[in-house]
Amino acid sequence: MTARSRSDSANPLPFDAARFDGLLEEAGIDVLIATSKHNVQYLLGGHRSFFFDYMDAIGMSRYLPIFVYPKGKPEHTAYIGTRLEQWERELDRFWPSTVDTSTWVSTDAMWLAVAHIRGLGDGIRTIGIESAFLPADCDAVIRQGLSNCEVVDALFPLERLRARKTPQELILLREASERVVASMLAVFGTCAPNDTKRELAERMRRHQVGSGLTFEYCLITAGTGLNRAPSDQRLQAGDIVSLDSGGNYRGYIGDLCRMGILGEPDAELEDLLSAIEEIQQAARKPIRAGARGGDIFAVGKGLLARSPHREYTEFLAHGMGLVSHEAPRLTATGPVPYPGYDADRGLECGMVISIETTMAHPNRGFIKLEDTVAVTDEGYEGLGDTGRGWNRAGFGTAQAKARAAG
Amino acid sequence: MTARSRSDSANPLPFDAARFDGLLEEAGIDVLIATSKHNVQYLLGGHRSFFFDYMDAIGMSRYLPIFVYPKGKPEHTAYIGTRLEQWERELDRFWPSTVDTSTWVSTDAMWLAVAHIRGLGDGIRTIGIESAFLPADCDAVIRQGLSNCEVVDALFPLERLRARKTPQELILLREASERVVASMLAVFGTCAPNDTKRELAERMRRHQVGSGLTFEYCLITAGTGLNRAPSDQRLQAGDIVSLDSGGNYRGYIGDLCRMGILGEPDAELEDLLSAIEEIQQAARKPIRAGARGGDIFAVGKGLLARSPHREYTEFLAHGMGLVSHEAPRLTATGPVPYPGYDADRGLECGMVISIETTMAHPNRGFIKLEDTVAVTDEGYEGLGDTGRGWNRAGFGTAQAKARAAG
Repeated sequence: MTARSRSDSANPLPFDAARFDGLLEEAGIDVLIATSKHNVQYLLGGHRSFFFDYMDAIGMSRYLPIFVYPKGKPEHTAYIGTRLEQWERELDRFWPSTVDTSTWVSTDAMWLAVAHIRGLGDGIRTIGIESAFLPADCDAVIRQGLSNCEVVDALFPLERLRARKTPQELILLREASERVVASMLAVFGTCAPNDTKRELAERMRRHQVGSGLTFEYCLITAGTGLNRAPSDQRLQAGDIVSLDSGGNYRGYIGDLCRMGILGEPDAELEDLLSAIEEIQQAARKPIRAGARGGDIFAVGKGLLARSPHREYTEFLAHGMGLVSHEAPRLTATGPVPYPGYDADRGLECGMVISIETTMAHPNRGFIKLEDTVAVTDEGYEGLGDTGRGWNRAGFGTAQAKARAAG
Repeated sequence: MTARSRSDSANPLPFDAARFDGLLEEAGIDVLIATSKHNVQYLLGGHRSFFFDYMDAIGMSRYLPIFVYPKGKPEHTAYIGTRLEQWERELDRFWPSTVDTSTWVSTDAMWLAVAHIRGLGDGIRTIGIESAFLPADCDAVIRQGLSNCEVVDALFPLERLRARKTPQELILLREASERVVASMLAVFGTCAPNDTKRELAERMRRHQVGSGLTFEYCLITAGTGLNRAPSDQRLQAGDIVSLDSGGNYRGYIGDLCRMGILGEPDAELEDLLSAIEEIQQAARKPIRAGARGGDIFAVGKGLLARSPHREYTEFLAHGMGLVSHEAPRLTATGPVPYPGYDADRGLECGMVISIETTMAHPNRGFIKLEDTVAVTDEGYEGLGDTGRGWNRAGFGTAQAKARAAG
């Protein structure tokens, strides 16, 4: 491996190494091999290959960034990228003292990682991997090249490390949230009868990209329909429209839901959205550093249990950040046994919570608000909190379309 | 697994099943399990989850689409998606007779795939996987649940199947190529001194998205620099600029390179680009159905060997389509032993070739053309063949900027 040396003092780690070392110690992991784009981006302090931002497949193999971190020895961290990251290396974008950008093929890269780990000396017994983001062929390389080691999953320490956001990360999440909502309001402004849901979703994509976001998805309903996929369904006068869309700003996700209407809401629609807003506002009230995470659910579910709309309404709260559902994990109803459920743990300053109240009304259609709330020492702070009522469609006026175009 | 039945006659397969069965037979594969987004999209006839188009990570697991195809029995094909594909299922977007969209977690989904394969009866001995796109945790499910089967890699039959594009696929590739070049010309039109490479790459992204493409990447150089990453390097009057960018249209990639200049090219620059253009044009001449694939290289490399610029110039040709480097594979200098090298095989009608001549000139900077050429019965057809000379920068005129924005 071609290594390069840099002075350590010039390269403070982009994450809390002491905290991470403690989490790895708890998990019994001696060396971490991270291979997901989001965790590698986090651990490298923001680097994500511009060439492979969207696509993984290339040639007869794939892009696989590999970040090797030996617990307690950050000075022996290695990053193994591809030849298409050589220019980012020239631009000095990697903090680890060992960086290799010589390979094209993921298994070749993993053999370099294995050689690096072997070079760290004896005493390495347990390797932590991302088992959902490590390809089978590279898993085989690890098991062959480090056959004396046990291989365990590292999801828990990685997501605990990421759960508490720094002020700089919160700035990115606020930007993402505000820009996603701004795109929604712009798109509502353009809605007109005869537009299709697909056209609206495409306008969301273009507006988000035009405002500097990476667009991820747009769930959309119209009228009394409950189908949330973009489709050829055409909007009609009077329709309600839900936009539940995610876009990221430098990797940090804005994911919110807002409501629009092609006309004026009647009293029932006003009441339904108010009922949702009441739950959304009440559920964020308990939030502050040290509060029990499960209290968000207790309040939200408690209000819902007394609501006349409980039969067709759901309440959900979950951490978010680089991944749309991440720690803190506030409900124990997940599909997998997991040590990280946080309902009985205290919330920490810098955690970020997504709160969603979703009504699939049998007659009036799909009505939902989703908000993003950051935990602070004193309480909470909503990110992208605007546009919470019925946003009137612009009926395709030239002004509205120009607004949407950015 | 929740299965649904549809009449077979209403659902012609989106790929050539007889050809695929033959390729699987040659590879000794009884059942294919495809798990890459690009191959699943191909095998499903265009479906790619709108929610997971960009991101894989969600919750404690990841998105993993699973397409199960038993050789010779397309009626027993299964697709296993996630709950966030339920709405696309309602819209009837899946052709297989067995579709499941009940799970959130990739290993749960893979257990459904295993159960489906077990239900196919005896006689299944070999499972073909995409070992670079199958996560380690799902690989373990297959080896546990189908422990009587051998597991082999299915890259070769999958990329041979995709190598010959249908007329409909060629339409998408032409659209992608033409739109990528149109974005390049628009961006050249906006270039002005003091713009950064990062700003130009961002303009490429926005213009591609504005024209309906999914932006993938933009390699960029400016002046005499050879660094191809977007950066804060500022353009200066007289600089040359290379834009080598990929974007896809409904999954099909346009990937071309064009040159711009902030001023007028001098005689040497005209000569250098002409030398590249000569190789580019000569190398496509041998192309027609039945011609030896290696002849493209023979002509390109032969011209280059006699060129005064050979020391700092490279010639490359490779198949492309859903993946930026795919079959036909025209050079045997790749990093992995592979049965699919096509240099001595005949080109087939519908194959698509990317041809690149890349000059890293020691004094004048990075000069390159990359073209996309489809193989026809009579010869070839260039896709997106415009803008091949020195494109003059618009120096940031209002008109040029408006063009780039829209």
